[in-house]
Amino acid sequence: MFQVKPLSFSDELYIQNRIDQKTKPIGALGKLENLAKQLALILGREKVNIQLPMMLIFAGDHGIASEGVSIAPSEVTAQMVTNFLNGGAAINCFCNSVGMTIQVIDCGIINSVNDERLMIQSLGQGTRNFSKEPAMSAEAVEEGLLLGARAARSQLEKGCNVFGFGEMGIGNTSSASALMAALLGLKVTDCVGRGTGIDDRQYQKKVSLIESALSIQGQFLEDPKGALAAYGGFEIVQMVGAMLAVAEAGGVIIVDGFISSVAALFAYKLANNTRDYMIFGHQSAEQGHQKLLSYLCAEPLLSLDLRLGEGTGAALALNLIHCAAAFYNDMASFESAGVTAV
Amino acid sequence: MFQVKPLSFSDELYIQNRIDQKTKPIGALGKLENLAKQLALILGREKVNIQLPMMLIFAGDHGIASEGVSIAPSEVTAQMVTNFLNGGAAINCFCNSVGMTIQVIDCGIINSVNDERLMIQSLGQGTRNFSKEPAMSAEAVEEGLLLGARAARSQLEKGCNVFGFGEMGIGNTSSASALMAALLGLKVTDCVGRGTGIDDRQYQKKVSLIESALSIQGQFLEDPKGALAAYGGFEIVQMVGAMLAVAEAGGVIIVDGFISSVAALFAYKLANNTRDYMIFGHQSAEQGHQKLLSYLCAEPLLSLDLRLGEGTGAALALNLIHCAAAFYNDMASFESAGVTAV
Repeated sequence: MFQVKPLSFSDELYIQNRIDQKTKPIGALGKLENLAKQLALILGREKVNIQLPMMLIFAGDHGIASEGVSIAPSEVTAQMVTNFLNGGAAINCFCNSVGMTIQVIDCGIINSVNDERLMIQSLGQGTRNFSKEPAMSAEAVEEGLLLGARAARSQLEKGCNVFGFGEMGIGNTSSASALMAALLGLKVTDCVGRGTGIDDRQYQKKVSLIESALSIQGQFLEDPKGALAAYGGFEIVQMVGAMLAVAEAGGVIIVDGFISSVAALFAYKLANNTRDYMIFGHQSAEQGHQKLLSYLCAEPLLSLDLRLGEGTGAALALNLIHCAAAFYNDMASFESAGVTAV
Repeated sequence: MFQVKPLSFSDELYIQNRIDQKTKPIGALGKLENLAKQLALILGREKVNIQLPMMLIFAGDHGIASEGVSIAPSEVTAQMVTNFLNGGAAINCFCNSVGMTIQVIDCGIINSVNDERLMIQSLGQGTRNFSKEPAMSAEAVEEGLLLGARAARSQLEKGCNVFGFGEMGIGNTSSASALMAALLGLKVTDCVGRGTGIDDRQYQKKVSLIESALSIQGQFLEDPKGALAAYGGFEIVQMVGAMLAVAEAGGVIIVDGFISSVAALFAYKLANNTRDYMIFGHQSAEQGHQKLLSYLCAEPLLSLDLRLGEGTGAALALNLIHCAAAFYNDMASFESAGVTAV
């Protein structure tokens, strides 16, 4: 369905040599050196050209939200979509500051938002309650992957080559936790956190609901699409499709926090090479995220105790990506600068 | 000598309320919320205006370098100063990327650099070897503090209100380690690291030299200026003076890595309130930095395993500061956006 080429590592030695001849001690730029190397492998060893960086925000509602597992009711999803469109949310402020354009996508919210700036790719008015029945059909999963890919491709065609992946959906940490537990065969308590800030009672309820759902619908260790149908969110499925399309086109994927990382996990499971194109922006405060990052061998660039989603951690990381590209492209070598090599 | 006013915390409740009414769960922006609060306390509770952010790079040579405690010889200090002026160093690439102007200051390098873009405030051709005698005179300390303040004030007068503090000086981690040990009464091994990358033999030599210096010149638990004369660097002394001047004028100080943090420690010891104006950009790979940050109750914004200095960690943090200001200034409230409060 998606043909993601592995990165060619034939250029790795050339790129590493170029980094090591820059006027600094070997390795002195720490994690930014690995970042620069990955960027050069993806976007070009002579010059890393970051073009039209784009934040895709996938919004959808969740049947599970009716169980009271979130701090906010489902109507907040549509309200926040409107807030995104009007420029009032945290992600708008960050994207303005870092120079990133935002595209918001309705993947299936309950209360429709009538605004021409919104890309409508709705798979329904929220998923079904996965604690009782599958969240969506197998067909919705297939369609969602294609719709997500379409959203990314419409930007890839304009020349965008770096994409942040954000989301909005009341209840989606429950969905993401269930997806992670079902696909990786982990205990639910290893995958569930406080979301944007639920209390002890709600936390216990969230764990019990997901455990009960897993006992009914089971694990899907070899079947990512089955897991998405059972526990997924419309926004998560479309995010997976969009990540696959970006990797297929040789673009850069900036992963945000927990939900975005679960989508990254599914994109990786559907096409392993997708991992090569991923940069992890942010270590979220959500417990479970650390385990997921370890599984993906990912070291996020930032750790700021964010627990908001929306793509905020990915947007904040963009500037570090720009700086890594800048030193790779423009920094003098010992020879060109006449500095005694160390 | 410097009159640094404490921040007025009378506005704290107003600022916290304003942050808590933004369209996000309470606390969901993690460390950026504390950052926004500090910025609003320093730069204004109605609007955080970041003006003409500036990177000051203080360069100086060290007599101790003749002992072979660094990976590079002293002539690299002047070579790197030339590299800064020509735009070829890592700090140039980062400052270009984040929109920060650079001013390089010769505080006392051995090989003079003849370039009108360099601000010359030399206190001599490198300090004396502090393992044998005091690095500089008491008069040089006083003069250095004033010269550093002058460099900052010339930018403050142009309207700059946010300053990064970078440095260049072969041997200056030895000086900074000795300063830290002498002022805080710590064991030398708690304060010495690998600098930009020395080996085991050089590390042992560095520790022995500093221990020997401390046994000759002693500690200065109550006398920061005495410690600066004994172990200081010309660039470190001027950096301390510049930090004090920025705080006195109500500007923001972005501290970089280990050397810059040692300067911050001395500025704090000379005028405690200076600490209120400091933002710590970066957790360096240098051991000793963590202890210093704990002492200053500082949580750096970034942790990227940098070990370069130059101000690189401060420059990389600027964008997070911009983003914190942007959400404080521009993000909608629940009421203005019509979002159900959580």
